[in-house]
Amino acid sequence: MPIAALQQQLSFLREIDRLKSVVRQSPLLDQSRKENSAEHSWHLAMYALLLSDYAAASVDANRVLRMLLIHDIVEIDVGDFPIHAGHSVEAQAREEALAAQRLFGLLPAAQGEGLLALWREFEAGETEDARFAKALDRFQPLLINVFTGGGTWTENKVTLQQVASRYGPAIQRGAPKLWAVCEAWIEQHFAGQPVNDAGC
Amino acid sequence: MPIAALQQQLSFLREIDRLKSVVRQSPLLDQSRKENSAEHSWHLAMYALLLSDYAAASVDANRVLRMLLIHDIVEIDVGDFPIHAGHSVEAQAREEALAAQRLFGLLPAAQGEGLLALWREFEAGETEDARFAKALDRFQPLLINVFTGGGTWTENKVTLQQVASRYGPAIQRGAPKLWAVCEAWIEQHFAGQPVNDAGC
Repeated sequence: MPIAALQQQLSFLREIDRLKSVVRQSPLLDQSRKENSAEHSWHLAMYALLLSDYAAASVDANRVLRMLLIHDIVEIDVGDFPIHAGHSVEAQAREEALAAQRLFGLLPAAQGEGLLALWREFEAGETEDARFAKALDRFQPLLINVFTGGGTWTENKVTLQQVASRYGPAIQRGAPKLWAVCEAWIEQHFAGQPVNDAGC
Repeated sequence: MPIAALQQQLSFLREIDRLKSVVRQSPLLDQSRKENSAEHSWHLAMYALLLSDYAAASVDANRVLRMLLIHDIVEIDVGDFPIHAGHSVEAQAREEALAAQRLFGLLPAAQGEGLLALWREFEAGETEDARFAKALDRFQPLLINVFTGGGTWTENKVTLQQVASRYGPAIQRGAPKLWAVCEAWIEQHFAGQPVNDAGC
């Protein structure tokens, strides 16, 4: 690639450094602070690297991994929308679509369009790869809550039914075997039994 | 996979959360704080995703990306060894090898052995994939220094010759076209000319 392309790529790589300053609701497992979206994306990529056998259908783990590396980059412009906060889903989708165009638009055209298409595929959640990526994106924060004895569920006074309806559909669709495990943890948690160990 | 395998995988995914608390010498680009090794690994994976055209030889970008996702996990046990601090390379290598065995050993055997082999390949730096991964692992912190007007070079009173010898060989071997760009930045920096923009 010519130097002009490299300049565009470095512009993008420089801009996305800001994802390290987008703070999520979930804490680190040692509860020392809240997690940021860049380290969350790394952790999710590791989930994809290890857990593709639990996908509902055969998936391309490398594509899932790439989707998860880029899925939150739009938060640089629009921030993180917490799962337990009431907000307009349509407004959020509109803002994120604009952010994706701006951010991936920093790259050389072919590369930027490729990543924009991959991000849109993730958002749409219709392909098997995207379904599994979305399942992992729900599974990881659920695990944080399980491993920290409640986490954002306790903070936000969330009920068992709300947990089931906010995490269940995506995990069940993309990774039904993982959902079976989650269901047991959730029931245990809401029955007042600590599931800090989750058998791990 | 059976549930026992899932428990091992979740044990590992839980343990590696600690990489988010390993603090590196390099700052975020806005200089608000130091970077941690988890978000550094995410950023490097994005470098691999975008820059494989600059590799010295044809590489498998997916393997490079996986190497970079796991390359620093050993720091959970041994911490980050700063590039500008004097320390025993042999002692570091020994400690890291033990850490890799312990950490990847948490996984189901076949999966753990696969990642251990990939980590060792990265460390050895002999395959084309590993050479390119190592080049990016030097290129990213160099860029932070360039984009922050000196960073750890200024802090550690590092000379042009030291910068060239600490970053040069790995970048030159794995990504010579990127090194050509770096050399110009480094000369500019040590000539007292700000290179904050680096043409980006």
